[in-house]
Amino acid sequence: MITLHTWTTPNGRKVSIMLEELGIAYDVNAVNLGKNAQFAPEFLAISPNNKIPAITDLLPDGSSLSVFESGAILTYLAEKHGLFLDASGPGRYKQLEWLNWQVGGLGPMLGQLGFFEKFSKEKSELASRRFATEADRLLMVMDAALSRNQYLGGDTYSIADIAAYPWVVTANTFLADVLSAQIAAKPALQDWLARVGARPAVQRGMAIPAV
Amino acid sequence: MITLHTWTTPNGRKVSIMLEELGIAYDVNAVNLGKNAQFAPEFLAISPNNKIPAITDLLPDGSSLSVFESGAILTYLAEKHGLFLDASGPGRYKQLEWLNWQVGGLGPMLGQLGFFEKFSKEKSELASRRFATEADRLLMVMDAALSRNQYLGGDTYSIADIAAYPWVVTANTFLADVLSAQIAAKPALQDWLARVGARPAVQRGMAIPAV
Ligand SMILES: N[C@@H](CCC(=O)N[C@@H](CS)C(=O)NCC(=O)O)C(=O)O
Ligand SMILES: N[C@@H](CCC(=O)N[C@@H](CS)C(=O)NCC(=O)O)C(=O)O
Repeated sequence: MITLHTWTTPNGRKVSIMLEELGIAYDVNAVNLGKNAQFAPEFLAISPNNKIPAITDLLPDGSSLSVFESGAILTYLAEKHGLFLDASGPGRYKQLEWLNWQVGGLGPMLGQLGFFEKFSKEKSELASRRFATEADRLLMVMDAALSRNQYLGGDTYSIADIAAYPWVVTANTFLADVLSAQIAAKPALQDWLARVGARPAVQRGMAIPAV
Repeated sequence: MITLHTWTTPNGRKVSIMLEELGIAYDVNAVNLGKNAQFAPEFLAISPNNKIPAITDLLPDGSSLSVFESGAILTYLAEKHGLFLDASGPGRYKQLEWLNWQVGGLGPMLGQLGFFEKFSKEKSELASRRFATEADRLLMVMDAALSRNQYLGGDTYSIADIAAYPWVVTANTFLADVLSAQIAAKPALQDWLARVGARPAVQRGMAIPAV
């Protein structure tokens, strides 16, 4: 049985979407970031970088495996179940390209934009401008990819789409004043957002944790 | 035959180190970022996010595969050669955890620190402070991991170490005025830096491209 340690934020939703797509039973442990629960010693023992998401899984031999970092968790679950990531061949690396692009680009840049625009009381015009420009550039790169293929890694829905979806939703809601006009101007991105968002597992995953 | 499209920057060096560790023959295409060569149409065709590194590989069936994003490239090469990433089992996911941590955390945060401290003519005290604090926190997390195990993913040297090494070197050289005292205060990190840096393949990889 898997336990998902998560919170109501885009990086956590990647994993709840994946678990819903897989249709497997799992427990949810809500790690309240607003109360600094990510710094509790029990949580740091499985996620030493004090961030959600993390999972713990009970292996057939009775031992327990923990994994932190959303990209590693998605890869673990995809390989364990043989779903949403090709096992070999060129398609696998197209999917991993865009997974890494999300983890190393779209996620951190939207995260910084959120910090400078929304969370920080102090402001920096330079930083706000930098991250707004970079976010729009990344969304443009994504739109171009999605005008070549239905999904980020090619013709099939994969962990790359699962990783990107909650962040594009965040761009379109929490960061709407900065980015929703930019998203509206990107037709392939909008189609993809509607197509992925119509999946029942995605809708269920986006509602977790219920707090 | 593999062609590595790279420049004299930490993300490029991850892949030249990996290729040197594998001991395989490869060509180097120096993509001069100072001259905006990353925006040339031939390069964008393989790396649509206009960033190095990328590779192109000639497959046995005569077709060509391109891969961008350093994390995806390292995974591709590790899986192709069966080296520096466990094929299965818990160790694989400990290595992927730290690979993702580098790609999504250490790399982007040191990259932003470099922008605000070194590249940007305009300055932001808020942004400089934020990224210097975050860089030190990440190096602390890394030091703690390396006091539990010799390498990031456990007892063996893996693509997680290969990904992190050029960035810790950058922290200790290009960003020395902000971070070298912090690194000097982290003994397990310093030992790892010396241990990884003593590898001949690492030394050769750090010298690529020769420009
Ligand atoms: N690269 C990580 C990023 C995870 C992340 O940034 N998590 C945030 C919430 S979305 C968090 O837990 N922040 C709490 C903190 O840093 O103290 C991943 O993809 O899993
Ligand atoms: N997440 C990417 C980051 C690559 C990256 O940031 N590359 C930089 C050089 S270190 C680059 O090519 N910058 C040129 C540009 O953005 O125009 C990876 O890990 O491959």
